[in-house]
Amino acid sequence: MKRTAFFISDGTGITAETLGQSLLAQFENISFTKLTRPYIDSVEKARAMVQQINTAAERDGTRPIIFDTIVNQDIREILAESEGFMIDIFSSFLSPLEQELSSHSSYSVGKSHSIGHNSNYMERIEAVNFALDNDDGARTHYYDKADLILVGVSRCGKTPTCLYMAMQYGIRAANYPLTEEDMERLQLPVSLKKYKEKLFGLTIDPERLTAIRNERKPNSRYASYAQCEFEVREVENLFRRENINSINSTHFSVEEISAKILVEKGVERRFK
Amino acid sequence: MKRTAFFISDGTGITAETLGQSLLAQFENISFTKLTRPYIDSVEKARAMVQQINTAAERDGTRPIIFDTIVNQDIREILAESEGFMIDIFSSFLSPLEQELSSHSSYSVGKSHSIGHNSNYMERIEAVNFALDNDDGARTHYYDKADLILVGVSRCGKTPTCLYMAMQYGIRAANYPLTEEDMERLQLPVSLKKYKEKLFGLTIDPERLTAIRNERKPNSRYASYAQCEFEVREVENLFRRENINSINSTHFSVEEISAKILVEKGVERRFK
Repeated sequence: MKRTAFFISDGTGITAETLGQSLLAQFENISFTKLTRPYIDSVEKARAMVQQINTAAERDGTRPIIFDTIVNQDIREILAESEGFMIDIFSSFLSPLEQELSSHSSYSVGKSHSIGHNSNYMERIEAVNFALDNDDGARTHYYDKADLILVGVSRCGKTPTCLYMAMQYGIRAANYPLTEEDMERLQLPVSLKKYKEKLFGLTIDPERLTAIRNERKPNSRYASYAQCEFEVREVENLFRRENINSINSTHFSVEEISAKILVEKGVERRFK
Repeated sequence: MKRTAFFISDGTGITAETLGQSLLAQFENISFTKLTRPYIDSVEKARAMVQQINTAAERDGTRPIIFDTIVNQDIREILAESEGFMIDIFSSFLSPLEQELSSHSSYSVGKSHSIGHNSNYMERIEAVNFALDNDDGARTHYYDKADLILVGVSRCGKTPTCLYMAMQYGIRAANYPLTEEDMERLQLPVSLKKYKEKLFGLTIDPERLTAIRNERKPNSRYASYAQCEFEVREVENLFRRENINSINSTHFSVEEISAKILVEKGVERRFK
């Protein structure tokens, strides 16, 4: 049986979606059709939303689950008339918080207030630019400005990890690919030696690496299992020899890898 | 008065942090010191956490707010002995959900279960690669594969937006900078004409653009207010003439811009 879940918001929907996904993940035996519906910020959009919810209820033969973070009372009342089972995120927590903080929330006085990611705009853009400019060993003379330098074989996940850390946390992360040439010398490239305390290793299972490289350069020596296995083994040896902490990216998401690296390196995010 | 808030998790902390930030944003008059503490997954780490919480309580002269998504009962009991005010995210919603779904959650049977971003790993990497390969007009012959093509003046926020959409939603977004040359011809570049239905415009206030360009090329003609104002005006005229929908990025975060674009273009995210 498939059940529909809606993440509904008058803003981006990120809070409703993040919490809703976490909660639904606790029900492993149930399969959900998940739909995010951001910017439901007018009575008209709310009425159209009710129709979508009721259509899903009829199709599924059971009522959809609604996770919502809508502030406007009129819009919430319209949604409440739908066939959905409402999980009302804000009202559940705001009244205990109001009591603890001895303060009224914007919500309870009917005024929306966004998270204001925007105050970090310039810092974030700078961090993304830093990741792009210092991607894949393109430049090595700005490593003094880096918070972190990721090292590992080509296509082990360094670039997405650096970009995620830049975007979410404003971390300036460079990355440097360890290529066969570095391996033959069996030592760290000179440009990295000076910044050993900033280095963090990424490694990956050779099977996964082979699959990823084959998407890029099918049937090449670069993508062959033998080559991938050789490179991963050499790099893991290098990490051990040089005492570089590392994570195997194979079974983790970019979010998980990023969070683990920050904990292990003790780097504080630049956004709060 | 400054008050401390902790976002504590046995995983990445993303859920606790996202919800906690949204809730705290509703209290505009209170200033919070916000600390995310991921991977609190052992009794020892929980005990160290309690000390941090109690230290903050003493320093602030008031108890810190704790948002937690910890599954393990032993760890939660230790945290509950701290001086913090606990907002227990999972237990608040899981029991009504269990009842509605007539099913026990992994949480209530004491088993953690992650969101599993990882099942999207390859699709996500592909989308990030697509954004990087098709950034800044670098290639135009893969636009048939694009879900979206962002257009706008140089440094108006196209690249971070494309990368965010790729990372979070698996959307393949290319971007193309409209340069002075295109403006003089007063028409869309040939490479974009074929894909008009995929185009979306980004625009920006000339003041903000001047500030951003000055970070890159201080005191250049490129970064001058006159040049920025001219380019923005010309591009906004082009958007109007060609009926290209657009957003002014100045007052929105990358999250907000991305969510608005997906709604306006009716593009469904590839991750659910």
